[in-house]
Amino acid sequence: MKKFINHADDFLEQSLSGLQSAHPELLQVHKDPFFVTRKNINPHKVQIISGGGSGHEPLHTGFIGHGMLDIACPGHIFTSPTPDQMIAAIDYCQPKNGVLMIVKNYSGDVMNFEMASEMIDTKNATILTNDDAAVINSSYTEGKRGVAGTLIVEKVVGSLAESGASLEECQQFGLHANNLCSSIGVALTSCTIPAAGKPTFDIENDQIEFGVGIHGEPGRRREAIREANLIVSDMVEAIFQDFRERDVKIGGNSEFLVVVNGFGATPLSELYLIFNSVTNILNEKQLNIGRSLVGNFTTALDMAGASVTLCLLDDAIRKHWDSSVYTPSLRWGI
Amino acid sequence: MKKFINHADDFLEQSLSGLQSAHPELLQVHKDPFFVTRKNINPHKVQIISGGGSGHEPLHTGFIGHGMLDIACPGHIFTSPTPDQMIAAIDYCQPKNGVLMIVKNYSGDVMNFEMASEMIDTKNATILTNDDAAVINSSYTEGKRGVAGTLIVEKVVGSLAESGASLEECQQFGLHANNLCSSIGVALTSCTIPAAGKPTFDIENDQIEFGVGIHGEPGRRREAIREANLIVSDMVEAIFQDFRERDVKIGGNSEFLVVVNGFGATPLSELYLIFNSVTNILNEKQLNIGRSLVGNFTTALDMAGASVTLCLLDDAIRKHWDSSVYTPSLRWGI
Repeated sequence: MKKFINHADDFLEQSLSGLQSAHPELLQVHKDPFFVTRKNINPHKVQIISGGGSGHEPLHTGFIGHGMLDIACPGHIFTSPTPDQMIAAIDYCQPKNGVLMIVKNYSGDVMNFEMASEMIDTKNATILTNDDAAVINSSYTEGKRGVAGTLIVEKVVGSLAESGASLEECQQFGLHANNLCSSIGVALTSCTIPAAGKPTFDIENDQIEFGVGIHGEPGRRREAIREANLIVSDMVEAIFQDFRERDVKIGGNSEFLVVVNGFGATPLSELYLIFNSVTNILNEKQLNIGRSLVGNFTTALDMAGASVTLCLLDDAIRKHWDSSVYTPSLRWGI
Repeated sequence: MKKFINHADDFLEQSLSGLQSAHPELLQVHKDPFFVTRKNINPHKVQIISGGGSGHEPLHTGFIGHGMLDIACPGHIFTSPTPDQMIAAIDYCQPKNGVLMIVKNYSGDVMNFEMASEMIDTKNATILTNDDAAVINSSYTEGKRGVAGTLIVEKVVGSLAESGASLEECQQFGLHANNLCSSIGVALTSCTIPAAGKPTFDIENDQIEFGVGIHGEPGRRREAIREANLIVSDMVEAIFQDFRERDVKIGGNSEFLVVVNGFGATPLSELYLIFNSVTNILNEKQLNIGRSLVGNFTTALDMAGASVTLCLLDDAIRKHWDSSVYTPSLRWGI
């Protein structure tokens, strides 16, 4: 294992210290227990809290700021955060109008956010994101996994909360957005957890994992690498199959937000090539790309690979996607 | 080799098509020959043109837009662009007040931009960036190499040009900024050029290349990997040595812009850990970090590794770093 680390034990603490030093105007890192809040807290808006195991940066700590998250609770690498982190963070922010928890659907995250939900006095609600079309159940997951669609939910719900909407309105809108998202990922390599020191899984030099999870969990199949256009075509088909199975109506005028997300070790030039493939495939289907995002946003440490997310746009999602956002890793309109 | 590509021959064309589809509001990709311009051209400002071999994305195509570049000429992977690209781009933009070429110091880039400079009728000037402290001469380079400091020069000169400054003012300011930048990089792995199909160099599983170039060129030494704090300490020392040799005065109140730049396959969490190391080292020296940037900005395809750039801030550089910028990969203040 070759990584820029000192000791596996202090990796998270030192990485969060760097985040703090790089973005003092935006956020505040708290260390006992670990949680990250906005620098300037507005307790009168619904507080949007997310979190999960670290290793997916910039998700979630890089999305703290105006128009997106108020709080992120990072667990150790690929390990759920614990209820004391969420409780301490919520106590620190003193919300007057409730807390909305955006939780990726993994058993540990779900259990720990649920415990926090029961232990706090503040009114709260939860959105479970589960946009991964690849598999139904998986390691650590009952039901579908939450992956890169989560950032879309965080962006649009964050925008709605900024406008002063109620907890119930924010929850309903987040569930609506999650339902309109579908994602699938492909791994070219494994990833290496610092404390483990060796790759999470083995993969041959000419093989890919189609449908991989963001912790290296198995997908649908192991297969030989092919031309990118062919891989991406299968990815988009899997997404449309998922939409059909969930009765999400796609028609001739449908417009999508397309996110091409790198897992950490895939160059931007390849991500744009994947985006080009998606564009051509949707054009052939006479479907429209209304908005797009290309880059590393929901990563799996040092995995080479990428995911494609389609989110069916409606007026509300388009409006709240476009609204201003100012965070370490997503910013526009300000 | 596992990459998201169709054929090595059409990689650049398809990647640029994806860039175009993802950012139609910002830029225009031209294909015969390859060049990228802003969507909305203002021929009355000094046109800032850069370019170089592809494989370093988002440099330079991702920096086109308000407050930064007007034109980027991408060569094939790690291959200089040719004069016909620059000439066609400049002809397309019809500059009324001159063209400033920002060129990383590599022999092929220097030669080809120089030929274009001589072949156009438009008034023009050039800035050669050469911020790499690692080595004096190298493969493809006489003198020091231009690396991640280039984006600082592009940002601050782009801002000055936006304000209506003259060609001479922009060139002088860019030379000044380049002089105040120093960088050094470390590779943990090699990178793989699609057309070559195998890694550019071999490196053992426990070795790093200290002072590597952004094409995988040799640096100062091959050595065993150590704790990140020790590696980063050597990197910062090399930068201060370079400042001393070039008589750049660092004093007790000196304030720096610090860029921690990933080479493409290093997770953001490690880049923040490196930034934390730099912060601690500068704090110990009682030097200040005034501005910072952490992420993948000047990459080497799929290389694992990172560089550190320090730029000594003065009022003018601080002002033009802070000014609004709106490009695919760098945006704030708008």
